[in-house]
Amino acid sequence: MAILVVGSVAFDSIETPYGKVGHCLGGAATHFALAASYFTEVRVIAVVGEDFLPKHEAVFTSRGIDTRGIERAPGLSFHWTGAYADNLSEAKTLGTDLNVFERFEPKVPEAYLDSEYLFLANIDPALQTRVRTQMQDVRMVCGDTMNYWIMGHAANLAKVLRELDVLLINDGEVRLLSGEQNAVVGAEKVLGMGPKALVVKHGEYGATAFFSQRMFADARTPRPFRAPALPLAEVVDPTGAGDSFAGGFYGYLASQPVLTPAVFRRAMFYGGVMGSFAVERFGTERLQGATWEEIEARFELFREISHLDDAEV
Amino acid sequence: MAILVVGSVAFDSIETPYGKVGHCLGGAATHFALAASYFTEVRVIAVVGEDFLPKHEAVFTSRGIDTRGIERAPGLSFHWTGAYADNLSEAKTLGTDLNVFERFEPKVPEAYLDSEYLFLANIDPALQTRVRTQMQDVRMVCGDTMNYWIMGHAANLAKVLRELDVLLINDGEVRLLSGEQNAVVGAEKVLGMGPKALVVKHGEYGATAFFSQRMFADARTPRPFRAPALPLAEVVDPTGAGDSFAGGFYGYLASQPVLTPAVFRRAMFYGGVMGSFAVERFGTERLQGATWEEIEARFELFREISHLDDAEV
Repeated sequence: MAILVVGSVAFDSIETPYGKVGHCLGGAATHFALAASYFTEVRVIAVVGEDFLPKHEAVFTSRGIDTRGIERAPGLSFHWTGAYADNLSEAKTLGTDLNVFERFEPKVPEAYLDSEYLFLANIDPALQTRVRTQMQDVRMVCGDTMNYWIMGHAANLAKVLRELDVLLINDGEVRLLSGEQNAVVGAEKVLGMGPKALVVKHGEYGATAFFSQRMFADARTPRPFRAPALPLAEVVDPTGAGDSFAGGFYGYLASQPVLTPAVFRRAMFYGGVMGSFAVERFGTERLQGATWEEIEARFELFREISHLDDAEV
Repeated sequence: MAILVVGSVAFDSIETPYGKVGHCLGGAATHFALAASYFTEVRVIAVVGEDFLPKHEAVFTSRGIDTRGIERAPGLSFHWTGAYADNLSEAKTLGTDLNVFERFEPKVPEAYLDSEYLFLANIDPALQTRVRTQMQDVRMVCGDTMNYWIMGHAANLAKVLRELDVLLINDGEVRLLSGEQNAVVGAEKVLGMGPKALVVKHGEYGATAFFSQRMFADARTPRPFRAPALPLAEVVDPTGAGDSFAGGFYGYLASQPVLTPAVFRRAMFYGGVMGSFAVERFGTERLQGATWEEIEARFELFREISHLDDAEV
């Protein structure tokens, strides 16, 4: 079933210990859409400037992603400049040029209205709400946010949280949003703000899902679930890893007829798989060129590195 | 089969956001021995002072731990004072009184010479080597170390590493020992220093094992294995969590007739289980009072929070 994603389509200039790229295609909606496109139909709502060329659009369309909701505006696209220190764990933002994003008013094209799954990538919660309001009949809503909105736009964010089935954020964002240092206590607090499930991303350590009793109506509330990340010898560029995780996670969910705890767990693994591809190359290169065979092989690798496998003793 | 552990039996004064305790029984060998005692016979080599009373010895003997190798010396026992900040992730050492440990010369009692498994807890690598030299015929040697020895006693530590089957250290220690920021590259370098396997402890995120081809002679070299940690709502005192992990891990290994990759993976889970008990109370309280039923139930919980369980869809 189709996923509609609203978020940034942007250009990134990135420096890591492994190299440097200028003005490569990026943005949360881009990474998300590419990762999800391996699992299901994806439609994008975003705004780009005059520097978004046919070759950039082809990155989406060659993966079958619907770009009719990508609006063109005069001026330049959103541009992020960042650098990673040695351990690659945290980006230092050197520049954020909002450009055309500054006056973005997302509109859902007619052709997108029948999308069953909605993903609100990390943008101004006021914009997230605007899209959510236009998509009342979706089957599921999943979203992301970041420190900037948690600190400065709490009231608007609170509205978004009340509408979410699943919130995907990282450890630091859970601490900031909940005001709690303990991960479990913090997760409980966040679930109390609206989301039926919370997926906490731990970077190189994987991710943990926490569930409220509202998540699976017919089943008992599952325990937290912890999915691994792949220990990788070469992490070239972590930009977009979290968005790629979200794309793999939500893409798999949307591809399944019924949402069960077991489907949710496998979705967490597919999230990790797509995140592990994303970081192997700069920008979107690796996510453009993955094959289904590679994805399934890596899913099996994730199982192998985390399962006891009692059959073989 | 019997494990011989050499390391500190000490007193800790600890402050965490959950409370404060003064002079409670601690030390790496203590936590290790208690955790391992649920799986196999354990013998301890350490030195204590006049403040080590019969009630302290009873903590060991009531769990069936052999204390004949705990030497008494005039003066006070090793005493560590530390505090944890809000996130409980790192201890701040406020005081280290070596006391009787300063002139410790470990001697292996005659009755311990037939121990099949040796654990060199975190102490001066010169002392680790002294014990290792007296125990040439053991089946397996496993050890721990810390930043202090990595930085200031590199030559002595290198000797110890060459003698190890398994080294258990944390992320920061791997980075310091290898000089590498990437976890996989760092692990490869550490394996090149001697250990046949490396278990990297990630605190609340679990642990990852890396294997050299020398680890399982008859099998292909296993992929890394990642074991989860339990998301706990109440972490009262993290002191000794790593030593308890090591005790559960090594205790289970020593209880099994043959070492296979599957046994190693289960040992990682039992390590996590014992670590998760340790942090629930101050000092050794929780490790003294666990039951086998609790341990097995928690092992199943670790499986549940990490396994896809494809049978149920």
